[in-house]
Amino acid sequence: MKRKCIPLGSRLSLLCPPALALILLIATGGLFAEDGPLPSWNEGPAKLAIIDFVAQVTTPGSDRFVPPADRIATFDNDGTLWPEHPMYTQLAFALDRVKALVPQHPEWKTTEPFKSVLAGDMAGVAASGEKGILELVMATHAGMSTAEFEQIVTDWFKTAKHPKFDRRYTELGYQPMLELLDYLRDHGFTTYIVSGGGVEFMRPMTMEVYGIPSQQVIGSSIKTEYQVVNDKPELMRKPDVNFIDDKAGKPVGINQFIGKRPIAAFGNSDGDRQMLEWTGAGSGARLMMLVFHDDAEREYAYGPAEGLPDTKFGTFSQDLMDEANNKGWSVIGMKDDWTQIFTSDQ
Amino acid sequence: MKRKCIPLGSRLSLLCPPALALILLIATGGLFAEDGPLPSWNEGPAKLAIIDFVAQVTTPGSDRFVPPADRIATFDNDGTLWPEHPMYTQLAFALDRVKALVPQHPEWKTTEPFKSVLAGDMAGVAASGEKGILELVMATHAGMSTAEFEQIVTDWFKTAKHPKFDRRYTELGYQPMLELLDYLRDHGFTTYIVSGGGVEFMRPMTMEVYGIPSQQVIGSSIKTEYQVVNDKPELMRKPDVNFIDDKAGKPVGINQFIGKRPIAAFGNSDGDRQMLEWTGAGSGARLMMLVFHDDAEREYAYGPAEGLPDTKFGTFSQDLMDEANNKGWSVIGMKDDWTQIFTSDQ
Repeated sequence: MKRKCIPLGSRLSLLCPPALALILLIATGGLFAEDGPLPSWNEGPAKLAIIDFVAQVTTPGSDRFVPPADRIATFDNDGTLWPEHPMYTQLAFALDRVKALVPQHPEWKTTEPFKSVLAGDMAGVAASGEKGILELVMATHAGMSTAEFEQIVTDWFKTAKHPKFDRRYTELGYQPMLELLDYLRDHGFTTYIVSGGGVEFMRPMTMEVYGIPSQQVIGSSIKTEYQVVNDKPELMRKPDVNFIDDKAGKPVGINQFIGKRPIAAFGNSDGDRQMLEWTGAGSGARLMMLVFHDDAEREYAYGPAEGLPDTKFGTFSQDLMDEANNKGWSVIGMKDDWTQIFTSDQ
Repeated sequence: MKRKCIPLGSRLSLLCPPALALILLIATGGLFAEDGPLPSWNEGPAKLAIIDFVAQVTTPGSDRFVPPADRIATFDNDGTLWPEHPMYTQLAFALDRVKALVPQHPEWKTTEPFKSVLAGDMAGVAASGEKGILELVMATHAGMSTAEFEQIVTDWFKTAKHPKFDRRYTELGYQPMLELLDYLRDHGFTTYIVSGGGVEFMRPMTMEVYGIPSQQVIGSSIKTEYQVVNDKPELMRKPDVNFIDDKAGKPVGINQFIGKRPIAAFGNSDGDRQMLEWTGAGSGARLMMLVFHDDAEREYAYGPAEGLPDTKFGTFSQDLMDEANNKGWSVIGMKDDWTQIFTSDQ
């Protein structure tokens, strides 16, 4: 894995960014103070890139100053703010729902992909392909009102646990990313989630886990339909895809929901590539960062480095790493950059 | 036209709402102070309903108190925040664009609905039906990047004028509604536009005219596609409908973008009916209001009252008025309730 510095604008091109950030760190006492910003981040290029960027866009009078209304930062969720292994949390939810709903669907016992789900045969589920996964999603995510679905998700998050860490999913937000979200908000940023995950699956937990309110959560969605049943208006969830907020869909979703281009974007996989490109293509100071999962002991290790496995959940291709290096996007190595992984770590 | 009071909750059912609001008005000095809230609103049931509602949801300890994060208010645009006659502003824009683009499209001189547009024959345009209007919209709103479209709209708003008032459209926000937006924001509300109009047509002016930033503008949209042209990422506007944010689409859009149910909603036509129903179906204090255009002298008069014409732009049916009366929605009469119409009035 090769990394480069993030490029600075023409005015600052003679200064090496880490050196500049170091000066800022020292000036703000960050290097010595126990209670400096981003305490779970080791000193290093990733932390320096963040602090340097925030200093640039928040310094009044600077030609890189950005007014608070335009300080938009977008974050992928799975693999960027919490784990995406051994599978996306939403898939774990769908599998649990199949098991919970099988009494009402006895035919699932003999029909794929449900049969494989019930047998715990993940290879069989995978063999059903995209069509099978979509069938699972629709069977478990549609056919009820938005209020009912919200309640189902809320209840699930109260008890469901991650298989490796044996903790509730809501306890597995990445502590350093939480600190980053807070740090940006403390500096006038508005923080958004822009995820391939279902928007109505995420919203019940984003405030509690990330401090991000529902209107700042952009995600994939199925269609909903307004119906008045017994004089009571409901939004019914239909088994049709409305929007896929992934890859080239991320800039589309950002434009549709926010109507402004972010100045900072954070991801961890090929699904975030276009979001980072779109963010980086604006003028002025920009910060694009990718979380790289290289910590098999404390979390998982996968992606474009020798000896690391490729993965279906959160593919980080060598192509993406090359683009990151070419464009000066910053790569966060979990192992070296983070002193703590989860908010619930002791 | 019949009007009723808005209903109050069980705890307050023995108090007549206007009396209660009157007490509040007097207590806050609103009745006598020149600089009280909503100065362009005459004292009357509409103003009282607003002040009473805001007092209820912002009084700590009250069982109708709503925390600021849930103080969501949604506003229709055309006919609610600015005029929709003699036609929707966006249609005026589309017609102007046809005239501007005809040198590149000589075939329009002999093809409907463009031929009628160029001849100023609005009956001919109308005769082309929904299909014709859609064709006009796509010909003038698609085929460029989102950045190009934003520039075209921004430029148009700088010079285009309303035919009756001979002022720029951006000078025709309703002063009383501007005061209402400010009043709600001053009391911790987040104010959204939820309009059938195109979201990318509105966003270039909503901050200037209403103080509403782009991320709080929900509207209809066409599809966009992420493309990298000469190494530069662009979102290209495609001639396909993405979402129609009107009628039953308004609750759908609200749920998709905000993920919370509003506690206050403001409209003026049948297109807003479901938004008001959806808002009113939540628990706790709610405020639903409809602007009724009954002021032919200062603006326009149309809708469900004897002698007023029906209209294609902003239909306010007798059905809607009946539902408003049955459900206790408040009706704002421009003529009696507003001392001033436009922000630019002297």
